[in-house]
Amino acid sequence: MKTANIYLSSKELEQAVDEYTDRLSGFFKDYGTEIIETAHSLGRVTAGPVYALVSSPHFNASAMDGIAVSAPATFGASERNRLRLHEGKDYLVVDTGDPIPAQYNAVIMHENLIQAAEGEVEISAPATPWQHIRPIGEDIVQGELIIPTYHRIRPVDIGAMLAGGVGSVEVIKRPHVSIIPTGTELVLPGEKLEQGSLIEYNSHIFAGLIEEWGGVARRYRPVPDVYEDIKSAVEKAAAESDMVLINAGSSAGREDFTKDIIAELGEVITHGIAVKPGSPAVLGIIGGKPVIGIPGYPVSAYFIMDSVVKPLLQRCLHLPDKSRRQVEAVCSRRVVSSLKHKEFVRVKLGKVGDKLIATPLTRGAGVVMSLVRADGVLVIPQNSEGVDAGEIVRVDLLKDLEDIENTIVCIGSHDPILDVLANDIHYKDPRLHLASAHVGSMGGITALLRGETHIAGVHLLDEETGEYNTSYIKKYLGSGNIALVKLVDRIQGFMVKKGNPKNIKDFEDLTRDGVSFVNRQKGSGTRLLLDYKLKQRGIDPARVFGYGREEFTHMAVAAAVAFSEIDAGLGVYSAASALGLDFIPVCSEEYDLAVPVKFLEDSNIRLLLDIIRSEAFKEKVKAMGGYSTDRAGEIVPVN
Amino acid sequence: MKTANIYLSSKELEQAVDEYTDRLSGFFKDYGTEIIETAHSLGRVTAGPVYALVSSPHFNASAMDGIAVSAPATFGASERNRLRLHEGKDYLVVDTGDPIPAQYNAVIMHENLIQAAEGEVEISAPATPWQHIRPIGEDIVQGELIIPTYHRIRPVDIGAMLAGGVGSVEVIKRPHVSIIPTGTELVLPGEKLEQGSLIEYNSHIFAGLIEEWGGVARRYRPVPDVYEDIKSAVEKAAAESDMVLINAGSSAGREDFTKDIIAELGEVITHGIAVKPGSPAVLGIIGGKPVIGIPGYPVSAYFIMDSVVKPLLQRCLHLPDKSRRQVEAVCSRRVVSSLKHKEFVRVKLGKVGDKLIATPLTRGAGVVMSLVRADGVLVIPQNSEGVDAGEIVRVDLLKDLEDIENTIVCIGSHDPILDVLANDIHYKDPRLHLASAHVGSMGGITALLRGETHIAGVHLLDEETGEYNTSYIKKYLGSGNIALVKLVDRIQGFMVKKGNPKNIKDFEDLTRDGVSFVNRQKGSGTRLLLDYKLKQRGIDPARVFGYGREEFTHMAVAAAVAFSEIDAGLGVYSAASALGLDFIPVCSEEYDLAVPVKFLEDSNIRLLLDIIRSEAFKEKVKAMGGYSTDRAGEIVPVN
Repeated sequence: MKTANIYLSSKELEQAVDEYTDRLSGFFKDYGTEIIETAHSLGRVTAGPVYALVSSPHFNASAMDGIAVSAPATFGASERNRLRLHEGKDYLVVDTGDPIPAQYNAVIMHENLIQAAEGEVEISAPATPWQHIRPIGEDIVQGELIIPTYHRIRPVDIGAMLAGGVGSVEVIKRPHVSIIPTGTELVLPGEKLEQGSLIEYNSHIFAGLIEEWGGVARRYRPVPDVYEDIKSAVEKAAAESDMVLINAGSSAGREDFTKDIIAELGEVITHGIAVKPGSPAVLGIIGGKPVIGIPGYPVSAYFIMDSVVKPLLQRCLHLPDKSRRQVEAVCSRRVVSSLKHKEFVRVKLGKVGDKLIATPLTRGAGVVMSLVRADGVLVIPQNSEGVDAGEIVRVDLLKDLEDIENTIVCIGSHDPILDVLANDIHYKDPRLHLASAHVGSMGGITALLRGETHIAGVHLLDEETGEYNTSYIKKYLGSGNIALVKLVDRIQGFMVKKGNPKNIKDFEDLTRDGVSFVNRQKGSGTRLLLDYKLKQRGIDPARVFGYGREEFTHMAVAAAVAFSEIDAGLGVYSAASALGLDFIPVCSEEYDLAVPVKFLEDSNIRLLLDIIRSEAFKEKVKAMGGYSTDRAGEIVPVN
Repeated sequence: MKTANIYLSSKELEQAVDEYTDRLSGFFKDYGTEIIETAHSLGRVTAGPVYALVSSPHFNASAMDGIAVSAPATFGASERNRLRLHEGKDYLVVDTGDPIPAQYNAVIMHENLIQAAEGEVEISAPATPWQHIRPIGEDIVQGELIIPTYHRIRPVDIGAMLAGGVGSVEVIKRPHVSIIPTGTELVLPGEKLEQGSLIEYNSHIFAGLIEEWGGVARRYRPVPDVYEDIKSAVEKAAAESDMVLINAGSSAGREDFTKDIIAELGEVITHGIAVKPGSPAVLGIIGGKPVIGIPGYPVSAYFIMDSVVKPLLQRCLHLPDKSRRQVEAVCSRRVVSSLKHKEFVRVKLGKVGDKLIATPLTRGAGVVMSLVRADGVLVIPQNSEGVDAGEIVRVDLLKDLEDIENTIVCIGSHDPILDVLANDIHYKDPRLHLASAHVGSMGGITALLRGETHIAGVHLLDEETGEYNTSYIKKYLGSGNIALVKLVDRIQGFMVKKGNPKNIKDFEDLTRDGVSFVNRQKGSGTRLLLDYKLKQRGIDPARVFGYGREEFTHMAVAAAVAFSEIDAGLGVYSAASALGLDFIPVCSEEYDLAVPVKFLEDSNIRLLLDIIRSEAFKEKVKAMGGYSTDRAGEIVPVN
């Protein structure tokens, strides 16, 4: 067993990138160009100035349908003294674009002609010299600069080059980037998943990013964690491409070979960057070319791609490193960050009232969904300990601000039907989105209190009255501010493995030896329900094995029961059904959307209400099972 | 000869597009989908919600390199009471990503272990249950929504779908658009250009735009202006694609067949839209599919593509019609527009001081370079007569605001070396651009006075002192505000056809019978020079044939001499030389850049000065001929 080479450097990101690009100056200097057909140059970058080879038009052309005349020969024509002109002698019939013969120097429009005899017309006004003529080079003059060096070619540029007789153009080569996924545990998408195996998907993210940045990606088949195998793949890739990315194995564990392989074949410039996520990156050079060890976790990988690989490609292509558009937002939670590194925090953004709210997403480096869900990135500098809740922060946008402003924010309790709503509203109006964050019913009430959300999913049982939601809202949000939009009555129950092998029927069964449970997080309505039921029955939570293990959604609880040794969780029927679990009903509860009254007339919220009230939506929800939609869309003010 | 069908409708653009899309509702409703590999879905649009088919991770996985243990078995361990654990019985060595067997429920990190004997470790702290374990579904839970319907797929979405076991995805078909160029005068790029023939380039602009908008373009070979030929091409295209664009022939002239062909094969919904440029468009339907007649002039065509074709593609793809980013700018000139139509005015934008200045470009519909040069579009509504100089207007951006803010604006006299400077500065720093507008030396002084430009090219001879530039600047811009950056001494002279067949030696020769001249516009230094020389010699300008014909640049004058019947023009050697003309020197003059003193320390201007002073630049200018660069880069304050 190879001992781990534990120590990574903690170089500052900017310093690491600067040093690396300095060391690669020869690579950039010699980076190649190629000559391609102008017609196929869309998106490519010019390697030199492009000058017109011919003028456009390349002859004096009529700009109208009419007749070409000699202007001096028309002088004297007036309403009172019409002038008669003879075809072939005094004029030539021309259409738009026709050449003007040398003896003529003006065009009279068709609609200003009075037909006389065949081959004769009369005019009632003189022509001014050069009227309605497009002179040679009106658009482009031979020898004129059409587009400069290092210009990214757009459709209109292709048109102008072709108009200027430029049939081929010298452009910067597209950087060819090889991507080598490594790891014995990797399987290709579609291959059988064994315990311990992982679907290799990072290389597809890299390939997509490289395409978007103007490069050409080549994905290698995954290479097992065998030093010599990875080494020969890297050697081959370094020979046949401009840049090599080795994915995973860039840290300092037993099977992290990237650093040693690069050191053997070339030179390691930096191992370890003070950035989170993404620190265990390796920046190396083999045969003068950049070879980069990218961390294995997808979010770490994404930020190394974005902050190290993207600038290299841009430098090859001589494209400016454009900063992302930034917006100011109110950070909804405290984010504590270490002084040891710069941190990239993914955030959801929502325009609630007139404030843009940034809500940090999970900081787990393994959660690719945090990138899918993110609207922006809050960059916390290395010398900062983080930001406070309520602090104004600058956020780098990952999406268009317009999309963010058209997003209904839903923070609160989770139910799978929120996914259905998110899908339906975007289907109904592609400009609109619904983004939900699952923080439990009490978290939803807090978000409403702070003005961070448009709507909140809630299902909070008042133990004294047996009523749902109203008493909590009144207590925390006052009277008259909030309305409840009734959504569903839903059945909560035990999710258990198929056939219920542990024969779980009631809460007492959770305390039995050999029965393991998975809980929901504090503040969720389902957790409150569990605690209420345990209290009713006088059961000490400490007697429930697994009470301390928390999941954040019904689906996550169902997955834990379906795919691990855990026997039971509490949740909704639709989640159990989606994963083929058995379901033992416990009670029915009211799951509503709490909406500030002031938002009820908002057009986006009204569209949401229309969807909730539609038969199509109710049918879909009923088909999921365990829901009643009798009151769906009803509005109950909380006074 | 077919008589022209003169009358086009003047339907409002929005109304025309709305009516058209209403009539196409069946087409959009039935628009198809296809199932493709997720790995190849970048940029495509989902046709339905995408749910995870497996969880990621699909087993409880170690989040660290270390050992998997049962947490309860570690309780009691402390610094004082180390606990010894035995491999195989108490723990299993795991690397990041390894599965955790059912009997364990926590991971202790490698760095917290004390190696005891072989197969034995000691710990000095207990493990909490589930620490350092990525639970099943931490990232993605089976059955969870990954991305909704009508979502444009990004690299991270591909990653998330593959991680969720989604190997193929249903997406909206890419719209296939056939483009039929028509016109007997059209030749393909690279073919021989005859008098009257035109290079067919519009179809390449359309194809590029369609690619950018998510469609697939098929360009047909140009079809001559023969009714039956065009008709059969349209029939074929309508059968084999989703949408057909017929280019040119959409107006009402003798050879404009588009309308009649569409009417014969299907139905014309609209012919003629109240928009400029672009009015002679035909919106038709054949076999339920959109078939559109696009005007022939490239700028007209561009705006019909943008305002009619783009929304159709977006509707097929269910993508929102995103408005372009808008900025507020000061319009530098009066723009008079008709109440009869909505007008799209192309503008250059420049950030001069703290003002964003919009300068209208040529409004000619045939000038594709106006699209290449444009930074934005000023939309003048149909019910407006235009905007005044100095008026604040909203401009739709065609480029990034960042690029515009990094552009040095140069308004004034034209010299071909400005093209060299534009190229060199963008080469030196890809973030920077130099944009020049050619309005003559006096126009440059006016632009400086109004604060519309950073620099102005000037060559203004004071007839009394024989000095260049300073007296004019003092008179119009005062003392102490402006510095002259010396650029070149350049030779002005007559540009004449090769061999000087009309034997032009001096200004008197311009008055000879059979000699034609082409002039520069009023306010240009070259025009002032001509007038001065004519006055010196007592020549009445009316005696110069062609005095009234004006061109705006040296290159345009050279092109008029080179490619038409015109015998002579006045201009610089480099322009004559570029087009192979003979050149008869008349005098030498000082061509300088006038720069407000306050801009001299601006970093962009300093970079420009560095370039002007560089040997490389001087070499390039000398190689063009007719210039002396002895004082290039010298700064002369005008006090």
